[in-house]
Amino acid sequence: PQPSAHGQWGGARRRDPMGALCPLPAPSVPLRERGGRGEPVRVLPVGAAGSLTRSPLPLHRADIALIGLAVMGQNLILNMNDHGFVVCAFNRTVSKVDDFLANEAKGTKVIGAHSLEEMVSKLKKPRRIILLVKAGSAVDDFINKLVPLLETGDIIIDGGNSEYRDTTRRCKELMKKGILFVGSGVSGGEEGARYGPSLMPGGAKEAWPHIKTIFQSIAAKVGSGEPCCDWVGDEGAGHFVKMVHNGIEYGDMQLICEAYHLMKDVVGMEHDEMSKVFQEWNKTELDSFLIEITANILKFKDSDGKYLLPKIKDSAGQKGTGKWTAISALEYGVPVTLIGEAVFARCLSSLKEERVQASKLLKGPKVTQFSGDKKAFLEDIRKALYASKIISYAQGFMLLRQAAKEFGWTLNYGGIALMWRGGCIIRSVFLGKIKDAFDRNPELQNLLLDDFFKTAVEKCQDSWRRVISTGVQIGIPMPCFTTALSFYDGYRHEMLPANLVQAQRDYFGAHTYELLSKPGAFIHTNWTGHGGNVSSSAYNV
Amino acid sequence: PQPSAHGQWGGARRRDPMGALCPLPAPSVPLRERGGRGEPVRVLPVGAAGSLTRSPLPLHRADIALIGLAVMGQNLILNMNDHGFVVCAFNRTVSKVDDFLANEAKGTKVIGAHSLEEMVSKLKKPRRIILLVKAGSAVDDFINKLVPLLETGDIIIDGGNSEYRDTTRRCKELMKKGILFVGSGVSGGEEGARYGPSLMPGGAKEAWPHIKTIFQSIAAKVGSGEPCCDWVGDEGAGHFVKMVHNGIEYGDMQLICEAYHLMKDVVGMEHDEMSKVFQEWNKTELDSFLIEITANILKFKDSDGKYLLPKIKDSAGQKGTGKWTAISALEYGVPVTLIGEAVFARCLSSLKEERVQASKLLKGPKVTQFSGDKKAFLEDIRKALYASKIISYAQGFMLLRQAAKEFGWTLNYGGIALMWRGGCIIRSVFLGKIKDAFDRNPELQNLLLDDFFKTAVEKCQDSWRRVISTGVQIGIPMPCFTTALSFYDGYRHEMLPANLVQAQRDYFGAHTYELLSKPGAFIHTNWTGHGGNVSSSAYNV
Repeated sequence: PQPSAHGQWGGARRRDPMGALCPLPAPSVPLRERGGRGEPVRVLPVGAAGSLTRSPLPLHRADIALIGLAVMGQNLILNMNDHGFVVCAFNRTVSKVDDFLANEAKGTKVIGAHSLEEMVSKLKKPRRIILLVKAGSAVDDFINKLVPLLETGDIIIDGGNSEYRDTTRRCKELMKKGILFVGSGVSGGEEGARYGPSLMPGGAKEAWPHIKTIFQSIAAKVGSGEPCCDWVGDEGAGHFVKMVHNGIEYGDMQLICEAYHLMKDVVGMEHDEMSKVFQEWNKTELDSFLIEITANILKFKDSDGKYLLPKIKDSAGQKGTGKWTAISALEYGVPVTLIGEAVFARCLSSLKEERVQASKLLKGPKVTQFSGDKKAFLEDIRKALYASKIISYAQGFMLLRQAAKEFGWTLNYGGIALMWRGGCIIRSVFLGKIKDAFDRNPELQNLLLDDFFKTAVEKCQDSWRRVISTGVQIGIPMPCFTTALSFYDGYRHEMLPANLVQAQRDYFGAHTYELLSKPGAFIHTNWTGHGGNVSSSAYNV
Repeated sequence: PQPSAHGQWGGARRRDPMGALCPLPAPSVPLRERGGRGEPVRVLPVGAAGSLTRSPLPLHRADIALIGLAVMGQNLILNMNDHGFVVCAFNRTVSKVDDFLANEAKGTKVIGAHSLEEMVSKLKKPRRIILLVKAGSAVDDFINKLVPLLETGDIIIDGGNSEYRDTTRRCKELMKKGILFVGSGVSGGEEGARYGPSLMPGGAKEAWPHIKTIFQSIAAKVGSGEPCCDWVGDEGAGHFVKMVHNGIEYGDMQLICEAYHLMKDVVGMEHDEMSKVFQEWNKTELDSFLIEITANILKFKDSDGKYLLPKIKDSAGQKGTGKWTAISALEYGVPVTLIGEAVFARCLSSLKEERVQASKLLKGPKVTQFSGDKKAFLEDIRKALYASKIISYAQGFMLLRQAAKEFGWTLNYGGIALMWRGGCIIRSVFLGKIKDAFDRNPELQNLLLDDFFKTAVEKCQDSWRRVISTGVQIGIPMPCFTTALSFYDGYRHEMLPANLVQAQRDYFGAHTYELLSKPGAFIHTNWTGHGGNVSSSAYNV
């Protein structure tokens, strides 16, 4: 197979990792070629279930251990194995270790352990241990059990969906104990874990030289083999970046939904037509995994020969990371409006029964028919989607920049774009353009100020405005298309009407304001003529 | 003075509270009539500073104590004094007590205390103590100091801007100790505190009979004397409702800003013209405090004879409660999009330097001139504002309803509308209509399903759509007008495009979906034909 232009899985498996394995000894067995389950390859005699502790092989031979044998953990192990690393597998329910070795890992170099002690004893030093367990207390539990078994300089990596604040806390706590803690975003789902995920490690930077080769070997590759993995930054930076990735994913998905809604209900297209349009769009600036699968979903037929999509209930679920991104944006005061609207759109979608009731009562506009040129309007929708997407990523990187400021992290924005370029759900050609923008100017304050993106939005804006204007007249909800445009129009306004907010706040609450001509001086006006004190705090004691 | 039709301050002072003072003995001195500072009235001999403990008056004579003599606390004390209650004042920096008695409280029945012990000794039982101190640890500190001095059944009231979760925690902790804790939202700023605030008490309901008379006496009055204060609900319900009030305030202010922006930059109006329009609007459905002060602000001239408003820096500040509302909306999964956008609009406004830079680089639409009928467009703007406002309040009450569900609170939605009807920043005739809607149907699921509001929005929608369409073409940011319309159009759609989100999630993450025809059954489709497991959690151990 050729490396995918979209940074999709496939590239990683064909690479010989030998040359890159600098800090690790070369594996003692040839790489297992990718093949069907049970394909005969040379295998280490890991022994039958239950006999692991009696293995005749030397101790300290595993390159890395992984705890947590659900599908993500299993697939990451098999991925590491493919790249020549000896992995020791462990699971709280120990029988799962035996099952895994006897089934999915049969014929590999993977070894197992029936206790944490045994697992640690089998590791080369400094010991490298990945946790792939449920975020929350399970992570702390394993850390607490591991610490007494480890030595200074050993490395614990949390590859789960942990909250970035937890990762920062663990980093600091373990640093005091001499353990290097890494919190790594892992994106790409099960398939990504198996054949090349996007990896976003952050935390104790001293750990990076010891895990870089493994991480970059197993990560997705793009372009001429660049890995979708690099060091993100200190403390919880890796998990923060993963969280923003997920938020952006929410935004991308909602934007596609709005385009789909307009195609279906304004242009009046059938599912196969829409599928073809998305397929075409995938050859343009929108070239991405999500556009590609949308084309596939639209044309997918159920066993009865009818399209499956319109049968699916329009109540979107969520697991929380999009919500966390929007909450962080509010906490740090960054206008990440598009992700916020995308999360709220899912909330509204989940009020299905209430909407069914409301749909019978609330009237829409009188005109619901589109009378323009359908082909031209389709191109307008494409441009509206592209412009809105640029705004969403600009907002996402604004949040990263603010987080870096809040926490004193040094983030490599171009590197982050490259990490998302392949392997993960939001992978796209577009992210390569973001990487280019940060290559041109690593200090770039906002994507919209980069020439490429500025020009791209400007070229789209007539279409974008037409689509919104049309959709508004016909009654199609477009929360993300419209918030993106409001942001663009707000961002490019030197003067916003917020002077009125300041005047109101000073009028009713003596909150004071600044004059444009005297920034830094806070003034109170007696607007009513009948008093009102200026007080820095109305509640001080 | 006549009671204000807008539920504004003025009514409270004219009422004789005697008849309503059931659980309290009648005050022993006549009420102080409202007058200028130093007006001679009959005063209790509170003694000179430092001599309080030597007062010859009997102990246990104060109806209530208040801790925290910043302006809010001082004004609440004077308000209670006006209504015949004897208040004991205390402050951490004790010299402030003496200052207050010698100045602002001179000639009143207010007494002071130089220690918490002294303060408690002067109170009738059950003791009633209001804290008006900075939210956070100061509240806990005072509670901890007070508890050993109090008896079972005594009442502590937190009138500060506490986070509702803190109030719930304090409620539970104090309940164990036999102390009744009340967290009360207090709105209306300094002026409201002095002459009639909106009060939103919640917590230990057993406390209500003991504080109801004081609270309802000092609260703002509307209509035929109905107080803007009633029992809100259990635990942190009072502070939660106050938080949502503040969020709605953010929304109302941003909506007015968008109207102002359109008048100024689309219609091209001067400040005095705009002031007149807002004055006219204040005679319509929009009749409210914020519209009224906007008219006043627009016509206000600086000492140089020029309008002050355009000189004010367009960077809006915030103190956090709007943000908290949006965060709660995200946490509880309620699409409170308008408040979210209003908070983000303030965030964007505060990026002044970046916007100045962007304004020089980013192009807007070619056409920025409005060519329609200006007078008709003004009416369109008014209707767009009104419709958007209805959406915002519908969303706010959705959040209240969800919080009640989350926490098991029984909330009186009509009562909440009445509490906001007067005294506070969002006071308006409009809130009376909301009260009416809940009177008609206390179980009303959503304001938009009430006939009055349904009809109002439907009558506005053509205007609303025209305004947005025009503003979008001309390049005016309208984050709240547009998100409100997106919500309306989404809410009235039986079928949203979220089926595509579900299909995508199932495609890349095997998250499963429901069929419209089989709700409750979660299905996974093998979209690609090459496998992928369904797993309830990819990270289980």
